[in-house]
Amino acid sequence: MDIKNYKMKESISLSWLSEMSFEADINGHKVYLDASPDHGGKNMGPRPKPFMLLALGGCTGMDVVSILGKMRVEFDSLNIRVEGNLTEEHPKHFDNMKVIYEFSGKGLSMDKLQKAVDLSKERYCGVSANYRESMDLEYEVRII
Amino acid sequence: MDIKNYKMKESISLSWLSEMSFEADINGHKVYLDASPDHGGKNMGPRPKPFMLLALGGCTGMDVVSILGKMRVEFDSLNIRVEGNLTEEHPKHFDNMKVIYEFSGKGLSMDKLQKAVDLSKERYCGVSANYRESMDLEYEVRII
Repeated sequence: MDIKNYKMKESISLSWLSEMSFEADINGHKVYLDASPDHGGKNMGPRPKPFMLLALGGCTGMDVVSILGKMRVEFDSLNIRVEGNLTEEHPKHFDNMKVIYEFSGKGLSMDKLQKAVDLSKERYCGVSANYRESMDLEYEVRII
Repeated sequence: MDIKNYKMKESISLSWLSEMSFEADINGHKVYLDASPDHGGKNMGPRPKPFMLLALGGCTGMDVVSILGKMRVEFDSLNIRVEGNLTEEHPKHFDNMKVIYEFSGKGLSMDKLQKAVDLSKERYCGVSANYRESMDLEYEVRII
């Protein structure tokens, strides 16, 4: 397998355990999925759909950390919250996601933080490139 | 908060740890994300994009297990592999995903397995409803 081809592919696997629970292998790390008790599960792990929010938050989060590093902007903490709104009709899917970045640190420049978020949103984050075809995406930057 | 509104929203949060690593809270479960060493990380957890594959595999996997239960189809094992192809241009995003379901069990009917997968794909799986707007989705059922 040539290296270029390897880099253009991603894959994960899931093994069914029992009832609604699965063990996943993702980049060599184990993750467990399960339904909530009202859907026949035991809540032994997260449900599947929130992983869509995690993919977006992680993608833009790593972008922003990397871009701010290159801009020599230092911060003490960064918390990212991703909220998703599901349609009422079936199949219930996301029609909106909102990413909220909360930074803390000394003398932070909102302009620079906003610039890093904009670069992720417009140029680097492949997850948002996929998602924006099927939903609205909103971004908010806060200094706390 | 009324119950209906609660059911229509999902949210996750991520806290930056150091370098490229984040700790996520997803339905009350902790998940760690990190970049690979060639992208400034220490591989302490999966990278973000494969979580898109996990969301799809978990969503359709839970559908299929639930539908087969209602059809009184018993199986011994189910492994699901999800492969995704990334574009070469930036932002690198998925243009294709393939879901491969591998069942084992006594006297399994391919027709019934295929029917369960088709129902998930066409009617129940909200993740595929989002993804199909921005990429091709393929499904394959195997009895091993």
